[in-house]
Amino acid sequence: MMRHNKSDVAVATISIPDRICELLRCFYTLGWCTASGGGISILSSDRSIAYVAPSGVQKERVQPTDIFALDAACAAPHSDMPLPSNPVLKMSECTPLFAEAYRFALPAPGAVLHSHALEVLMCTRLFQREFRSSEGLEMVKGLPGFSNEDEVVLPIVENTPVESELVGRVRAAILAYPQAHAVLVRNHGCYIWGTTWEKATTTAEALHYIFEATERLRASRALHSGPARTLLSIPHAHG
Amino acid sequence: MMRHNKSDVAVATISIPDRICELLRCFYTLGWCTASGGGISILSSDRSIAYVAPSGVQKERVQPTDIFALDAACAAPHSDMPLPSNPVLKMSECTPLFAEAYRFALPAPGAVLHSHALEVLMCTRLFQREFRSSEGLEMVKGLPGFSNEDEVVLPIVENTPVESELVGRVRAAILAYPQAHAVLVRNHGCYIWGTTWEKATTTAEALHYIFEATERLRASRALHSGPARTLLSIPHAHG
Amino acid sequence: MMRHNKSDVAVATISIPDRICELLRCFYTLGWCTASGGGISILSSDRSIAYVAPSGVQKERVQPTDIFALDAACAAPHSDMPLPSNPVLKMSECTPLFAEAYRFALPAPGAVLHSHALEVLMCTRLFQREFRSSEGLEMVKGLPGFSNEDEVVLPIVENTPVESELVGRVRAAILAYPQAHAVLVRNHGCYIWGTTWEKATTTAEALHYIFEATERLRASRALHSGPARTLLSIPHAHG
Amino acid sequence: MMRHNKSDVAVATISIPDRICELLRCFYTLGWCTASGGGISILSSDRSIAYVAPSGVQKERVQPTDIFALDAACAAPHSDMPLPSNPVLKMSECTPLFAEAYRFALPAPGAVLHSHALEVLMCTRLFQREFRSSEGLEMVKGLPGFSNEDEVVLPIVENTPVESELVGRVRAAILAYPQAHAVLVRNHGCYIWGTTWEKATTTAEALHYIFEATERLRASRALHSGPARTLLSIPHAHG
Repeated sequence: MMRHNKSDVAVATISIPDRICELLRCFYTLGWCTASGGGISILSSDRSIAYVAPSGVQKERVQPTDIFALDAACAAPHSDMPLPSNPVLKMSECTPLFAEAYRFALPAPGAVLHSHALEVLMCTRLFQREFRSSEGLEMVKGLPGFSNEDEVVLPIVENTPVESELVGRVRAAILAYPQAHAVLVRNHGCYIWGTTWEKATTTAEALHYIFEATERLRASRALHSGPARTLLSIPHAHG
Repeated sequence: MMRHNKSDVAVATISIPDRICELLRCFYTLGWCTASGGGISILSSDRSIAYVAPSGVQKERVQPTDIFALDAACAAPHSDMPLPSNPVLKMSECTPLFAEAYRFALPAPGAVLHSHALEVLMCTRLFQREFRSSEGLEMVKGLPGFSNEDEVVLPIVENTPVESELVGRVRAAILAYPQAHAVLVRNHGCYIWGTTWEKATTTAEALHYIFEATERLRASRALHSGPARTLLSIPHAHG
Repeated sequence: MMRHNKSDVAVATISIPDRICELLRCFYTLGWCTASGGGISILSSDRSIAYVAPSGVQKERVQPTDIFALDAACAAPHSDMPLPSNPVLKMSECTPLFAEAYRFALPAPGAVLHSHALEVLMCTRLFQREFRSSEGLEMVKGLPGFSNEDEVVLPIVENTPVESELVGRVRAAILAYPQAHAVLVRNHGCYIWGTTWEKATTTAEALHYIFEATERLRASRALHSGPARTLLSIPHAHG
Repeated sequence: MMRHNKSDVAVATISIPDRICELLRCFYTLGWCTASGGGISILSSDRSIAYVAPSGVQKERVQPTDIFALDAACAAPHSDMPLPSNPVLKMSECTPLFAEAYRFALPAPGAVLHSHALEVLMCTRLFQREFRSSEGLEMVKGLPGFSNEDEVVLPIVENTPVESELVGRVRAAILAYPQAHAVLVRNHGCYIWGTTWEKATTTAEALHYIFEATERLRASRALHSGPARTLLSIPHAHG
């Protein structure tokens, strides 16, 4: 049994700022960060630098030199790292909320993303204080640590015009729901995290799928026509 | 603390005709200018030249040399600028309506776009004389000068087969709703503006999101299951 | 007043087989020709050659050398033109129906396309014998010869397992609805034409928009909340 | 009558691992394999090697050197073939289910794919033990061996947390429904096959279209407004 020679592998490793820009273009296409909203932060592998996109710009057009490199607490630009080349840029308004997830979520996230997708908004209107997934969805397996028999329960916090108030609410929600991979914000969107950017992104895809399924299942009134009570009984068994 | 050398920034500055063509391809993908409808006009930075796309052509296929350079009033081709190379082209039928926004909207727009997106059409059928956004949407922050506690109120004018009549109605609506960033036209679409092409585009993305949310919230009858009356009370507080 | 030098224009003219392949990729993206269905035929400018795609292949993967060049009646390969390089290919099953449109529709089409889009299918189930557009849609202007005050009335013929029967029905429908730009086929799709490929494509985009609007307006029960009875009366007139 | 010289044909033949990667990117765009789920397996032309993608990775980012080459029973890596260059990779969890289709479906599949698309999920909630297509859909012709007068009947098996149990259910369903091209799994997705990757892909596109049509026809309550009882009678016959 052979193994491909490593040099066969054509996957170029790219820098974190490049990765953030590439992901923002993907997220834009998925409807997660339209109108300059949404974004993603990624930690360096030694967790000493938190990279974030700038605030209030079209996320799908951000360039690697626009990315901020912050200290691990996301409090200020990292003293050893260059600032974005454009002095007008400010760091993402989501930064303090990314910091809450880095600090309080478990296992410790390596990446946190913020989505404004319409399917998230819808779920914050279809549920009161907690989002609960429909029973038995296979896609729940897409969430680290979950099986398809688990229910996904996510806190929904009220939105606020003052960002500092949102920070406290998101922190409280993270602490109160230690198994959750996300916090929803009413009429706004959600924060989703994972131990790596790959995990954060696939967790986010799984959750957006579950959110859209919830909206469509309700619209079709298909929520109660679930599994048959018995296993499939084969109508015409085959020799 | 360092700053990236400016020469690091790889963003090429492109001409306004190039930008219009690039944006038209984006808008086509978003469903804003299908079937040769819709479009965008951008003013030169000194506000002396208004660029517009040609009329009745597939907007996603327009080339930079197809773009008209008009005088600031959008009344005639600018005397110092070349005409489109193809003599058959006529300037966009939206041109007089772009001119109304340039003239009467405040703060003075640097770009105006016209969208035929289905979510706009739907909202002109779901509301009578004014579009009103659902309460508390975070996306409202995407509109310059608005907070997420503001309601978005946009005038809806009746469509007309004779374009000149539409000009008067749009002007009246702009003057009557000085805080609006857009005017909707029944069964037709909308005009949206901003001080730059970036602002006009992100404002348009925010509004299209709000329009689609309105349609989906109504379809899911989720309009009245809004925020809980009290703040999130944490069910299982964490030490 | 200057005019761009013609040599500025960067639009390369491409061959009809190349154009068909490019359009098939666009139509695939729009959902018009999924699962190897759908397609387009374009006539040469002298109307002596009708180009069609092969049958039963993935339309978005068709190459220029796969395209058939037929005589003007679409009855057989054109005697002066090469056959597709792959001898296994057969010409599109839609070919006899394209021929009906070329022969009987007025003004004489230069291109005919066939779409299986879901919004077409839906409209063949929402209407009995004729599709009728909702009142006053601006997009109706996208159909050559129509104003936004016109109603779009399109015949719906029943589908048939035997293609030859469909030919007669489509011919009868074209003759019976001389102002229509399209014929719908129940549970199947539609044929749409125009004097050029550009006109056929924009007509098709306008009709697909109108079909989707019809489905969404009905789903939102927004059909009866149409225009206000009076013109917009401005609530707070501006000095 | 001429024939294009074969050397005109520009379609490069690509390897099966390259094809799998290309198809996974297409399937991702179609919503079939979001969040690292879904996938496709292709057999070598001599049916001695089964290629499968790795498990638990973002399918749209898989590289050709990540693909596993297994023995024909999909039980173990093929002894003559290199392993993926990344030793961390494991073969797709769907592999035993692909093997069931290769072994029991008729005619013998050359490719099997697994989709998590939302329209599949919806149909597993709208039906109890069998999916049945709406009457008379032309798209049914997209399934090898079916006419547009045939009804598509597909088994729905219950999902299970333990994969081995799913294997037995899928096998029983394949044997019990020998004419089916797919098996649906409640709350999960479906397995679809074809004699080649092209046939498997177009069959899958046809089925996903039929699934989405089913959801939309139900939402619009258009299921019972089917064909008129009589053929189209032409209202204003044309001389």
